[in-house]
Amino acid sequence: MVKSKREWLEQYYPKDKDRLPRFTTISDRVVDPLYTPEDVEDVSYDRDLGYPCQYPFTRGVYPSMYRGKLWTMRQFAGYGTAEDTNERFHFLLEQGQTGLSTAFDMPTLMGYDADHPRARGEVGREGVAVSSIADMEALFAGIPLDQVTTSMTVNCTASILLAMYFAVAERRGIPLSKLGGTIQNDMLKEFIAQKEWICPPEPSVRIIVDMIEFCSHAAPRWHPISISGYHIREAGSTAAQELAFTLADGIGYVQAAVDRGLDVDSFAPRLSFFFNVHNDFFEEIAKFRAARRMWAKIMRERFGAKKPQSWLLRTHAQTAGCSLTAQQPLNNVVRVAIQALAAVLGGTQSLHTNSMDETLALPSEQAVLVALRTQQIIAEETGVANFIDPLGGSYAVEALTNQIEAEAWDYIRRIDELGGIVRAIELGFPQKEISEAAYRYQQQLEKGEKVMVGVNKYQVQEEPPIEILRVPPEVERKQVERVRQRKAARNPAVVAAALEKVRRAAREGTNLMPPIMEAVKQEVTVGEISDVFREVFGVYRDPAYI
Amino acid sequence: MVKSKREWLEQYYPKDKDRLPRFTTISDRVVDPLYTPEDVEDVSYDRDLGYPCQYPFTRGVYPSMYRGKLWTMRQFAGYGTAEDTNERFHFLLEQGQTGLSTAFDMPTLMGYDADHPRARGEVGREGVAVSSIADMEALFAGIPLDQVTTSMTVNCTASILLAMYFAVAERRGIPLSKLGGTIQNDMLKEFIAQKEWICPPEPSVRIIVDMIEFCSHAAPRWHPISISGYHIREAGSTAAQELAFTLADGIGYVQAAVDRGLDVDSFAPRLSFFFNVHNDFFEEIAKFRAARRMWAKIMRERFGAKKPQSWLLRTHAQTAGCSLTAQQPLNNVVRVAIQALAAVLGGTQSLHTNSMDETLALPSEQAVLVALRTQQIIAEETGVANFIDPLGGSYAVEALTNQIEAEAWDYIRRIDELGGIVRAIELGFPQKEISEAAYRYQQQLEKGEKVMVGVNKYQVQEEPPIEILRVPPEVERKQVERVRQRKAARNPAVVAAALEKVRRAAREGTNLMPPIMEAVKQEVTVGEISDVFREVFGVYRDPAYI
Repeated sequence: MVKSKREWLEQYYPKDKDRLPRFTTISDRVVDPLYTPEDVEDVSYDRDLGYPCQYPFTRGVYPSMYRGKLWTMRQFAGYGTAEDTNERFHFLLEQGQTGLSTAFDMPTLMGYDADHPRARGEVGREGVAVSSIADMEALFAGIPLDQVTTSMTVNCTASILLAMYFAVAERRGIPLSKLGGTIQNDMLKEFIAQKEWICPPEPSVRIIVDMIEFCSHAAPRWHPISISGYHIREAGSTAAQELAFTLADGIGYVQAAVDRGLDVDSFAPRLSFFFNVHNDFFEEIAKFRAARRMWAKIMRERFGAKKPQSWLLRTHAQTAGCSLTAQQPLNNVVRVAIQALAAVLGGTQSLHTNSMDETLALPSEQAVLVALRTQQIIAEETGVANFIDPLGGSYAVEALTNQIEAEAWDYIRRIDELGGIVRAIELGFPQKEISEAAYRYQQQLEKGEKVMVGVNKYQVQEEPPIEILRVPPEVERKQVERVRQRKAARNPAVVAAALEKVRRAAREGTNLMPPIMEAVKQEVTVGEISDVFREVFGVYRDPAYI
Repeated sequence: MVKSKREWLEQYYPKDKDRLPRFTTISDRVVDPLYTPEDVEDVSYDRDLGYPCQYPFTRGVYPSMYRGKLWTMRQFAGYGTAEDTNERFHFLLEQGQTGLSTAFDMPTLMGYDADHPRARGEVGREGVAVSSIADMEALFAGIPLDQVTTSMTVNCTASILLAMYFAVAERRGIPLSKLGGTIQNDMLKEFIAQKEWICPPEPSVRIIVDMIEFCSHAAPRWHPISISGYHIREAGSTAAQELAFTLADGIGYVQAAVDRGLDVDSFAPRLSFFFNVHNDFFEEIAKFRAARRMWAKIMRERFGAKKPQSWLLRTHAQTAGCSLTAQQPLNNVVRVAIQALAAVLGGTQSLHTNSMDETLALPSEQAVLVALRTQQIIAEETGVANFIDPLGGSYAVEALTNQIEAEAWDYIRRIDELGGIVRAIELGFPQKEISEAAYRYQQQLEKGEKVMVGVNKYQVQEEPPIEILRVPPEVERKQVERVRQRKAARNPAVVAAALEKVRRAAREGTNLMPPIMEAVKQEVTVGEISDVFREVFGVYRDPAYI
């Protein structure tokens, strides 16, 4: 009988017959030939796993997980005018979606109204065009804001869009305390990875802390930030880098809020996260498990948070856009299904499954439906939602969880040594680590060491076309006209006074949210408020291009 | 700190918030709220799991598993004439498929030539029409039989079709010793589940033992049987029933061969298996792991097999046809992807992934391609093939593996008490157990306790059509004509003499394979030889309808 893993490896494992020279994850992590009890010898169940909803939360943040409540099925949607997207929202809710998630167009995200010259060609193209509260009203027409949770993917102009959403709720007589949802509002990952910004890091973080502070009183069920690894991963990071830089960003926000004098337990329970879920099945599951364990330690040990709710890493997940291919788009249904399964086995709280046609165009109704059905099949047919942390105890998964955690701690230590995440970003540290990883993967793809089916292997000559959705050009014309009319109909003195209040708060360091809320109620626009930001805080330039 | 699973369940698990009154697998197995080290306390790694390719083979039958060689991607294909199917074979091989698998039409499977009145309307409809060796020649035109492994799904007429395949190889100068492949040839599961038979159980098993004996000498790389749970599961069994009745069938065949005086180690290494892989992700993975462990015990302990190769359960797997829906057929891509992943995590040697349109029609080329790409994505993108038995050690999966094994042993014990599987079938025991399970599931579906997305939940009004493939009616006309011409061109005396030799062997109990091989080389047909079987062995009637 074989006595040890080592004996088995030496005497029985036929290394010379290996199919590949190296077996590595998509993040280039070497995978052992076998994982056995020896690999988890130093794992203590009580210390390292624990029970669901018990420190360190490796097995999940809720006591009964999906047996109590399924994850929220939240498909990111937005295109054209507010009316177009509202129609898609209603379609998704009718099809059994359980939360909403809004994609805004590039002008809205970058703080330009639809009628601004820089918006040309982009209005409603990759998301919904929202310039003023009237658009926000139309976007959520007929949707009970107190019954559905809403997510908004917006960062530079998050304060303005959130103020509009809150203002819409107030107009409908819904108290802010009843609003549940999330706004992305994570600027640090913009500087690291997605590169969409208006102001420099310091004032950007300040606005975020304003929002955290405001929400902790005014909208206690709202998540004022979704600390996002998604874009870090999409930029080509490894799984461990995604985890490390996301948690480092989290540390940065918490530290900034604590530095302002907020009690950590007053806001920590409403912090939320957003991770990518990529192709490498077990590595991704391990990443989610490690993330919970690490955040719990960070909040309890580093920040001394006392409330157990402050220790919980609750997260949204989205399947990896960068893993999808324009070639043979039906293959994307397969990728998304397996990625979604990994997110669920990893214990996510909320999930967006990408549509198979996203690399080609805006998702068509059919593609969106298959993506949603993917979640419903996982939830209702595969039986996995009957289990809590079903991979707990797996020698391979526990070993990977430990490895990823160790690697991520190492990054966090290095960032601390550099003086924190804002400084590390200014020095280009995370950016450089990511670009090296992206380059390595690109090289592996080119050498065929890593495979994208249909791209560098299993190509086909011709493909049957799939139906795709395009936004017609009249959308932009219509929206520009509407914004101009609305602006013209306002009292300019009222607008100017409202903007002056925002300007004053920006300059004086008082919380920006109250004057922004006042302003949007007066139909002051995204572009106008963003101009104040540009004026007071300045516009950031990428250090790489200075 | 929580001290035990019991304490956690009593004090922390909020049972009153459960989403469902019962959490059960698709096989109605109750799933515990949580699995912890306590659930695997009595699992001994060395005794119950062991190392890959070491008794009891729970972790896999090969030492490096998919790191050494990926599973065989073997898509079941067949429709129309031999030429039509040959074209599909070439298409699949060009797309990276690594093994062939043949679907025959109903007349061929039931022992009727294309020109028989009973064949009308069925020629080439659900598989390829093969009446004589000329069809078999055309079916494998341009395919190097010594380089590709071939599977043939045929049971009642397996001896005839295998003889034809062997004869084609001989004509091409390929020695039978170089042929690798599998023929289904499992009649016991026909009596239990699929209900396609010609002769009664006893002579059916005798022909199978003839083939096992013949191949053990003449074609030592060929698998003369694929002991099949697939159809048992499709008939509505539970996972444990599928496992138990399949292994019981295996015991039946081995016992019959041993009773004939064969040395168990002379044929056992060439027995192969075929399991379904259904929706319930973890239960299916556990089933594959339990199957290997049980068969190893059966062969070593019960039959005293000495060669380690005799202990190995090597298996093909196919995703569950019965799980697919005609509604929203793109959803089937999702189901198939997750089922295929379960088969791979379960350690299958070979896999067919169903096409999304199979419930509607014969698979179209596009649908077949997505199904094959599903396997390639799992193999090359998800990273799971880097691992050996990655779920080994998981508290949940190890507990399920033990449960399924215990349940299956219990069935095997009851079958032994009834006097073995042939007697149990005559008494209707497995049939009754399966029909009760199928009824239970049907009831659960009707009550909405189990969900089929798009069928009893998440229905949509209209569906965009997907392209489907239909066999044109001229296929039948052409094939009937061809068979008639070929028959007319033969020397009737030669045909009669060849058939007489088959008849004599059938009557006298000598091995049927040599005279069948002689006969097919003389263009004697499937129907003509089947008629001899009908004449000598009689035609079986379902005891349920007598």
